[in-house]
Amino acid sequence: MKPSHIEHIGIAVKSLKDAIPFYEEVIGIKCYAVEEVPEQKVKTAFFKVGDTKIELLESTDPEGPVGKFIEKKGEGVHHMAFAVEGLADKLLLAEKRGIQLIDKTPRKGAEGLNIGFLHPKSTFGVLTELCENPNK
Amino acid sequence: MKPSHIEHIGIAVKSLKDAIPFYEEVIGIKCYAVEEVPEQKVKTAFFKVGDTKIELLESTDPEGPVGKFIEKKGEGVHHMAFAVEGLADKLLLAEKRGIQLIDKTPRKGAEGLNIGFLHPKSTFGVLTELCENPNK
Repeated sequence: MKPSHIEHIGIAVKSLKDAIPFYEEVIGIKCYAVEEVPEQKVKTAFFKVGDTKIELLESTDPEGPVGKFIEKKGEGVHHMAFAVEGLADKLLLAEKRGIQLIDKTPRKGAEGLNIGFLHPKSTFGVLTELCENPNK
Repeated sequence: MKPSHIEHIGIAVKSLKDAIPFYEEVIGIKCYAVEEVPEQKVKTAFFKVGDTKIELLESTDPEGPVGKFIEKKGEGVHHMAFAVEGLADKLLLAEKRGIQLIDKTPRKGAEGLNIGFLHPKSTFGVLTELCENPNK
């Protein structure tokens, strides 16, 4: 089954306060929520463009995943998420094809979605997330 | 004016031959075209998911922009493009806000679109493209 759309793009930034005005005033999309996600050690700002959300990610801890990403690679796109159906089967299929999984089975993510991450080592450098809406 | 959607995401890969099967067989989207773009020193594979295209970019020359990107940062998301209206005005506005422009005025891009790039130094690490369909 084909993914329906790109659910979101996660972008690592050093400072939400600095980056939000660029997206609001230059790109022209409004930030509709800012949330802290302590377990991911990030503060997130959400925008919507078409079917896709942009999530700016500011690290709250240099040892967290986004803090480490910025130290290694600098600011930039951190991950890309596809909206899929049949997430558990997709993860099984990926594993069968030799893809290194971060999540072998679906887990709960933001906004009630079930999610699973594929490791960028086997997805050509792009940390790839698959998301399923369980209420669809 | 708000962008209508993310027009495409450009992803730098070392080898189209290696990366295409991941997107086709694991993500589940079909490559519908492969084209060489000599002026950009890349070979590109196109996919569509929802309103957004994914463009895999394989460098044909280590001195080209994608070759240099991969040498510096490794494989990964190379740029993100928003579909906008009023591109020339958007570029003027960006410049007024202090954004460093790669293209000060629109130029012709792939598929008949008018395009302009903003420099990642002033867009928080994401090479950002604005695209306008002149036939809309």
